[in-house]
Amino acid sequence: MYACTFGVLARRERGLIRKKVAELAGVSEATVSRVLSGVGTVKEETARRVMEAARQLNYVPSALAQRFALRRSGNLGVILPMLPKVNLFSTYYFSEVLSGIGMTAKQRGYDLLLLFREPDEPRDYANLFRTQKVDGCIIIGAQDVPSERAALAELREGNHPFCLVNQRYDGEDYNSVDADQRTGCREAVRHLLAQGCRKIGFLNGPAVYSNSKDRLRGYREALEEAWLAFLPERVLLGNYSRTSGYQQAKAVAALVQAGHIDAIIAANDRMAIGLLQGLKESGVKVGEDVALIGCDDSDIVRMTDPPLTSIRVPFFDIGSEAASRLLDAVADQDGSAAFDVKLPVKLITRASSSAAGTTKA
Amino acid sequence: MYACTFGVLARRERGLIRKKVAELAGVSEATVSRVLSGVGTVKEETARRVMEAARQLNYVPSALAQRFALRRSGNLGVILPMLPKVNLFSTYYFSEVLSGIGMTAKQRGYDLLLLFREPDEPRDYANLFRTQKVDGCIIIGAQDVPSERAALAELREGNHPFCLVNQRYDGEDYNSVDADQRTGCREAVRHLLAQGCRKIGFLNGPAVYSNSKDRLRGYREALEEAWLAFLPERVLLGNYSRTSGYQQAKAVAALVQAGHIDAIIAANDRMAIGLLQGLKESGVKVGEDVALIGCDDSDIVRMTDPPLTSIRVPFFDIGSEAASRLLDAVADQDGSAAFDVKLPVKLITRASSSAAGTTKA
Repeated sequence: MYACTFGVLARRERGLIRKKVAELAGVSEATVSRVLSGVGTVKEETARRVMEAARQLNYVPSALAQRFALRRSGNLGVILPMLPKVNLFSTYYFSEVLSGIGMTAKQRGYDLLLLFREPDEPRDYANLFRTQKVDGCIIIGAQDVPSERAALAELREGNHPFCLVNQRYDGEDYNSVDADQRTGCREAVRHLLAQGCRKIGFLNGPAVYSNSKDRLRGYREALEEAWLAFLPERVLLGNYSRTSGYQQAKAVAALVQAGHIDAIIAANDRMAIGLLQGLKESGVKVGEDVALIGCDDSDIVRMTDPPLTSIRVPFFDIGSEAASRLLDAVADQDGSAAFDVKLPVKLITRASSSAAGTTKA
Repeated sequence: MYACTFGVLARRERGLIRKKVAELAGVSEATVSRVLSGVGTVKEETARRVMEAARQLNYVPSALAQRFALRRSGNLGVILPMLPKVNLFSTYYFSEVLSGIGMTAKQRGYDLLLLFREPDEPRDYANLFRTQKVDGCIIIGAQDVPSERAALAELREGNHPFCLVNQRYDGEDYNSVDADQRTGCREAVRHLLAQGCRKIGFLNGPAVYSNSKDRLRGYREALEEAWLAFLPERVLLGNYSRTSGYQQAKAVAALVQAGHIDAIIAANDRMAIGLLQGLKESGVKVGEDVALIGCDDSDIVRMTDPPLTSIRVPFFDIGSEAASRLLDAVADQDGSAAFDVKLPVKLITRASSSAAGTTKA
C-alpha cells in the first residue's frame, strides 16, 4: 500500500523515493509527486511509467491508489432508464444490447457498471467521470428532452468519452451506434404492398426517440414511392410496451372492421404482441383479416400464433460495436474521431403478414 | 481535493489540520491521520465522522478520496458466468434476477458492477474487495466445483459480504437466496399423477447446481409418495440450454412411442421449449401423446403451442431479496447474521399437461 503511506512518510523519505522513482521513470520529481499524491493531472502514459517505476522499486501502490493516480476505474458505464413496471433485462432490446456490450467489455478487460436512471432523476452524467466511477459510458434509451441534451453537452464539454445507442440529436455529432430503422420500415411497407395490402397502418413509439422518427420517415417514404397517400388517422401511438400495444388493439380492430386498414406495422415486437393478443380478443384474425409486422425480431415472435413477421435489428452487434468503438476512444482520447454507425436491418417474413391484403382484394 | 493534497502539505500544516479535525470529530489525531492518509483500518462510522469534520472545515475530499478513506466503492458486485453462445441477459432467469437486484440496488443508492466470469477463468472473488471495486457481491450461477468452493472460502475468511443466488453448498452456511425447487417438482409430479399419468420422465440439468439436485429429490419424493418406482432410465440430462432440450427430443420421442413414458418434466423452460420443438418434428403431440411441464414460468411459455405448464419461480423477488439482505449485511458487517432464504414456487397449469395420461389409460 505504498501510495497510501506516502502521505505519512517523513519528508526526507518521500524526497528520496521521489528522486529514485523520477530517475527510473525518466521524469521530473515534481511529476512523480503529482502522480503519487494524486494531485494535478499527468499524461496517462507518464503516470503509467511512474507507477511502473514505483513498482520496480518495490513501492507497490494499491489498486485503488493506482486508479487514483491513473484516473482509471476499469469500468465501462452503461446508463439505463428505469422503466416503470418493466423488468429491464427482460426486454429483448436491452437484453441483447447489454449482452453485446458485456461480451466486448469483458474481452477488453473492462467491468460493466450499470447506472439506472429514474425518469425524473437529474441527469448528471459528467459526475460519473468526476468521481472516476467510469472511464467511458454508453447511454441507452436517451430521450430528446432538454435535461438530456444538457447532460450530454456537459459530457462533451468535459471531453468525457461517451456513446449513444439507438439515439441521435439533430445538430449534434455525438458518438452513436444505431440501426437503420428508416430502411427497415420502408422494406416492411414494400413487403405489405407486394402482399396486396393497400391500407397500411402504423403503430409508432414516442417522438422523443429518434428511432420513432426514423421509422415514421421510412413508412412515409415507402407510401410516397407507391403513390399512396399518407393518412394521419392510420398512425397510432404507443410507448413501446406490450400493454400499450394491447390498449390500441380496440382502435385497430375498429379500423380493420371498418375497412380503413388491411395491414399494420408496429414499431417494436412488444407492441405487436400486445396488439396481436388484443386483436384476437376482438375477433380479428391476424394474417387473414389484417397483416401485422413487428420490429426487433425478438426471440418471442417465432412462437406467437401466427408467427410474427418482424424487422430483425442486430441489437447484440449494436452493443458490441458501441462498446468496442467507445473503448478505442477511451484508450486514445485525443486521437479518436467521432463515430456514427448505422447497422443494417433485415425483414424476416412469417405468417402474420401472409397475403392478407390479396385475400380481401 | 483536500485528502489528495494532504500528502504534499508541509508537516506543520498537516499537524494543524489533524488537530482541528480531531477536535471537531471527537477522535484522536492518530485516527484522523489514519482516515485522511488511508492507512490502517478505522471503523466506518468513525471514518465518516472524520470526513464530515474535514468537510465542515472546508477540506472537501474528492469522491474517490472519500471512498479511498471510507473503503467504499458504492458498487454492488454481481458475478455472472459467461455462457458460451448464450446472450446472458436474454435468458429469462438472469434477466429477472438482475432486474430484481438492480431495482433494489438503485433504491439503496448502489450502482451495479457486473463481473463476467469465463468458465475456465480463475475465480478470485476476494480481489474485488481488496481492490475496493465492490462493497458486497452476489454470485449467480455458482457451481459446486473445487475452484468455486475455494473462492467462496476466501471470501468468508476475508469477512467480505457476499450472497449466493440459487446455489447451496453442503456443509457451508453461506448467505443464500433460493427458490423451493424441491417442493415445485413434487407439485409437478402430483399434478401429472392427478392427470392420470403414471410413467413420468425427468429432464434435469447438471448436478454442479444444487437446484438440479433439489428438483431430482422432489421428483423422487413425489414418486415414492405415490408408491411408484424411480426408474433411472426415465431421467435424462441437459445443460439448461434450449439446444440441450432439443437434442434430447429424439430420445424422449422414442420413450413415448415405446410407451415407456407418458409425461416429462424439464428442469427449466428453455429445455422444455427445445424439447417441445424437437417432439413436434418427431411427430409427437405434446398435450396428447405426452404431457410436458417446464420450470421458471418464463414469459415465453404462454406463447408456445400448446401453452406450457410450468413451475413459477419468483426470480425477480429472489434478486431483490438477495440484494436487500446483502446490503443490510454490508451496512452492518459485524452485527449481521448469516441468512438462508427459500422463496415459494407455484405450479401454473396450461394445455401442455392436460389429461395426457388419461387419454391413453
